[in-house]
Amino acid sequence: MSPYELIKAKRDGGKLAPNDIRAFIDQYTKGSVTDYQMSAMCMAVFFRGLDPVELGAWTRAMLESGEVLDLSETKGIKVDKHSTGGVGDKVSLSLAPLAAACGVPVPMISGRGLGHTGGTLDKLESIPGFRVDLSVADYRRLVRDVGCCLIGQTATLAPADKKLYALRDVTATVDCIPLIASSIMSKKMAEGIDALVLDVKVGSGAFMKTIDDARVLAKTMIGIGGEMGKKVVALLTDMDQPLGNTVGNALEVIEAVEMLRGKAPADYTELTLALTAEMLVLGGKAPDVKAAREQLHEVMRNGAAEKKFCEIVEAQGGDPSAITDLTKLPRAKKMMPVAAPRDGVVTAIHSENIGLAAMALGAGRAKSSELIDPAVGFVLHKKVGDTVKAGEALITMHVNEDAPVREVSDRVIAAYTIGTQAPAKKPLVLERLT
Amino acid sequence: MSPYELIKAKRDGGKLAPNDIRAFIDQYTKGSVTDYQMSAMCMAVFFRGLDPVELGAWTRAMLESGEVLDLSETKGIKVDKHSTGGVGDKVSLSLAPLAAACGVPVPMISGRGLGHTGGTLDKLESIPGFRVDLSVADYRRLVRDVGCCLIGQTATLAPADKKLYALRDVTATVDCIPLIASSIMSKKMAEGIDALVLDVKVGSGAFMKTIDDARVLAKTMIGIGGEMGKKVVALLTDMDQPLGNTVGNALEVIEAVEMLRGKAPADYTELTLALTAEMLVLGGKAPDVKAAREQLHEVMRNGAAEKKFCEIVEAQGGDPSAITDLTKLPRAKKMMPVAAPRDGVVTAIHSENIGLAAMALGAGRAKSSELIDPAVGFVLHKKVGDTVKAGEALITMHVNEDAPVREVSDRVIAAYTIGTQAPAKKPLVLERLT
Repeated sequence: MSPYELIKAKRDGGKLAPNDIRAFIDQYTKGSVTDYQMSAMCMAVFFRGLDPVELGAWTRAMLESGEVLDLSETKGIKVDKHSTGGVGDKVSLSLAPLAAACGVPVPMISGRGLGHTGGTLDKLESIPGFRVDLSVADYRRLVRDVGCCLIGQTATLAPADKKLYALRDVTATVDCIPLIASSIMSKKMAEGIDALVLDVKVGSGAFMKTIDDARVLAKTMIGIGGEMGKKVVALLTDMDQPLGNTVGNALEVIEAVEMLRGKAPADYTELTLALTAEMLVLGGKAPDVKAAREQLHEVMRNGAAEKKFCEIVEAQGGDPSAITDLTKLPRAKKMMPVAAPRDGVVTAIHSENIGLAAMALGAGRAKSSELIDPAVGFVLHKKVGDTVKAGEALITMHVNEDAPVREVSDRVIAAYTIGTQAPAKKPLVLERLT
Repeated sequence: MSPYELIKAKRDGGKLAPNDIRAFIDQYTKGSVTDYQMSAMCMAVFFRGLDPVELGAWTRAMLESGEVLDLSETKGIKVDKHSTGGVGDKVSLSLAPLAAACGVPVPMISGRGLGHTGGTLDKLESIPGFRVDLSVADYRRLVRDVGCCLIGQTATLAPADKKLYALRDVTATVDCIPLIASSIMSKKMAEGIDALVLDVKVGSGAFMKTIDDARVLAKTMIGIGGEMGKKVVALLTDMDQPLGNTVGNALEVIEAVEMLRGKAPADYTELTLALTAEMLVLGGKAPDVKAAREQLHEVMRNGAAEKKFCEIVEAQGGDPSAITDLTKLPRAKKMMPVAAPRDGVVTAIHSENIGLAAMALGAGRAKSSELIDPAVGFVLHKKVGDTVKAGEALITMHVNEDAPVREVSDRVIAAYTIGTQAPAKKPLVLERLT
């Protein structure tokens, strides 16, 4: 069928044949299916969906639009983690060295921050000298020798996804479960992994606003993984406030290292342990999650996890002394508190607005061409359930010159809801799907 | 709202504000809203529709994306007709001189044929010398002095529609009632008309397959006209077989002239009279359709209609003697009958397949860049309800060199259904809407 006929068939609720999907994606990668045809197709998919067979073909076509990395020279079951993204989510920074310290090889290809969410690559680059643009050969070598490598997407991996993602981003076809699932899975499968742990966030600050949507997305990705012979475990996790107490690149690296030392906030620590424990089980290093958690506590206690982080930093060109001595990380010129406007209890923190406020300080970017300031951001002193007094600091802003402190301060205050009664505590991990 | 937000709002079933629609279309015309954003919007409109207020704003924005012709120097109520397109539909060729002969000024901007349907411009150009690329100044002058002018769309009229139509054509967003209605109405309103008669075809060979769809389209266009202060009358007409007995450019001109002489097939004659009578009433030249029909019969009988056609042809650079002596029109080299494969009654003729068969002979074009042969085409000897004997001619093909006569002959035979019993006669005009 021609591209026109395929768009029309999907528009009218038809099922597309796998070889037609393959040809459509291949022609899109080459440019003979145009952006305007693909955007019409994506909008039709938004309304009509893709069934498991279509979705498998779509994902495989995106995966095979580029190189699929071969990590067979690394022994063991290679496991990665993917999160659907959250404000203050620095889990990858601690999870990767934890898993690697326990013997699970972690090949991790991450993204940059855009809009209200930060990116693992930007956070890592706040470590002096750290490079995320390694060659595929170096990536392969470090996974083998160090047990972990954290790099950015290369042009050769899933180029169809790269092109398609940029298009979806400007045509209001991002929030479509089959397209999200195929995008994530095609990129992750290209890394050369054997298994994957998914952190699917649920809540007002997350991509998936309801647990039902999150469950559908998780099951969709697990289904794609199954089609491709990869084990996938998903945790649905609460994202109704920023994770941990920091938002901003160097500030998040500090908190991540503190997590490895057992000194980080409970929510961030718990989420990291829950996800990493799944990786150890998938990687065959622990019989169950309970045993995995014991191993994780051991590598935190005996310093092996922090040592592994230093090894990774050094192997990727960074200065490991900035990990052992966190004062060497970039620091903002000024620290300014944002005071609570009244007495009460924090009943909600709007994650997205906190993320956008941090972006306004320079911690994030609105467009991919913008530079970010690694030093700036927030330290949160009050989280949901905490009591506050009027005038007490909700957040400390870490700022450099020319920061729009008044605007950011107003945004922070607006992002906090202060009420009279603490809301009921919700579990962090809402559901586990396999 | 940004283009992105507007696409998202429509996708999610929201109502777009008129000024937002205006800005979106304006930016599309200028190129700052991209083709891929517009195609995503069109697909969202396909699923979500446009309400009357949105549709009015959309149409007005397309209309005002270019020049709106001012025909105020022509006295009287200027009326045009638009048809949604049919095989063998040469109504415009006879309707325009008929209405003009009765004193209704007819400013008519038409299109070219594409795919299975022919175009009025192509038919007119089979008259030696006839030019359809007149300037706006000439157009205005001829409407005033001759009472009619038939030209092609200019670059300055509704450029947003021109751009959008080409995009919809390759993104499977053509058959969407609000987009069809706004496209037609923006072009027609740009002509400088005061009133419009619509011929909305219904049936297997038409764009609208069911009377319900046709009714929705007609009412949508009448609504847009009302919003813009123009009177619109719509006839829903049957299109289950080609109209009249000819398909092909010069052949259709011949039939049109014969219609003015009162010698054309009943279906074509009746449809032309029904539509033109509505124009006379809208144009204030007759109190009702019955009186209008009497006037039309009079200008046919006394030769005024044919004389008006000659005047139009001469004013547009054509040779009027080719109208009074139809043998001067282009003629194909050979005439070859297509024989009925068996005895029976014609129960159906698939219009679209007849149109495609004529296109294969060279009477039409698959792409807008292709040339057409004005002389070739079909004369139909058998229409629905006619009895046939095996070996009797269903159609005579008028062909030139290198015509794929075998293929075309097979297609013609396949387009005819020969059964045992004549189907019930359906009225040509199914419904009248105002």
